[in-house]
Amino acid sequence: MRVYLAGPEVFLADRDAIAAEKKAICAQHGMIGVFPTDPAPSAPKADTDWMRIYLGNEAHLQSCDALVANLTPFRGASADPGTAYELGFMRALGRPVLGYSNAPGNFTMRSLQHLRGAVHRRGNGAWEDADGMEVEDFGLTDNLMLDGGIAAAGGLLVVNPVEDAARWRDLTGFTSCISRLAGLKK
Amino acid sequence: MRVYLAGPEVFLADRDAIAAEKKAICAQHGMIGVFPTDPAPSAPKADTDWMRIYLGNEAHLQSCDALVANLTPFRGASADPGTAYELGFMRALGRPVLGYSNAPGNFTMRSLQHLRGAVHRRGNGAWEDADGMEVEDFGLTDNLMLDGGIAAAGGLLVVNPVEDAARWRDLTGFTSCISRLAGLKK
Repeated sequence: MRVYLAGPEVFLADRDAIAAEKKAICAQHGMIGVFPTDPAPSAPKADTDWMRIYLGNEAHLQSCDALVANLTPFRGASADPGTAYELGFMRALGRPVLGYSNAPGNFTMRSLQHLRGAVHRRGNGAWEDADGMEVEDFGLTDNLMLDGGIAAAGGLLVVNPVEDAARWRDLTGFTSCISRLAGLKK
Repeated sequence: MRVYLAGPEVFLADRDAIAAEKKAICAQHGMIGVFPTDPAPSAPKADTDWMRIYLGNEAHLQSCDALVANLTPFRGASADPGTAYELGFMRALGRPVLGYSNAPGNFTMRSLQHLRGAVHRRGNGAWEDADGMEVEDFGLTDNLMLDGGIAAAGGLLVVNPVEDAARWRDLTGFTSCISRLAGLKK
């Protein structure tokens, strides 16, 4: 089973080390981890670097049997939007999707924190921000489309808050997802 | 042609009015607009409200022939993650995806603004944030997966900055997308 390793770790300077760690955990469970920056199955033809990266990632997604997403909030209350895109992509293909977050709190709490008090209550009690946009309040890990996609796929969404310094490197939640996938495979 | 109307307008108190406006523009072009909060094709079976909403949206996505996403940045430098999820979902189904943003600047500029100076340069000149995460710098509208998905689908990504007060209501970019879709249909 090939597993697409989605997450914003691609933005870390030492991403290759993290990719190697994740792949080792996959291998221990009899799986092959595929990191977005791995060479694409066939060299994508495009005029720009960014489009070659996109087409490579899309080819990797198509070539994988499942996806595990790092949904740790990225520069705000929510997961990295590229990771959210890839989660939706794999769910549409009907393949297993799982996720984990290393941050504390639920989406509602983090959204309110992020808005720094610039919110008020609607007549029905719902919070809305200064733009008049409601603050989603289902007590979920992130936007309901992300939690919902994982739930609909019968996947696992692990929340395992760690200290800030380990936020982008702790692989406890990741390992739980890979372990669950190994169980599904049997 | 049925068009899924993705975007964070679902969080507005007057979302029904925006949905009606978008549907009217679709109808003028011979298309049917499908808003996430429309009644689902078949009543989704789930134990929770949020899962019923998720399954309803997924059924709507499956029932549509194309998607137009409002990618105007939502509480940060990027589009709403639920919208990013839906964009990836529809691209994986191989159907046309298009998008628009009513905000100025590109993703790099907005990311640097959002980080309020808490960035520094790597040895190779790339910006990284206080977490050691690189700031994507391709001069795109958003994370390259979002721009890339639309480009790969042969879609259109319209950037049409408007004044703040009209940020969530101006439909110029949306109308361009629907007009392009109408052209593709012929």
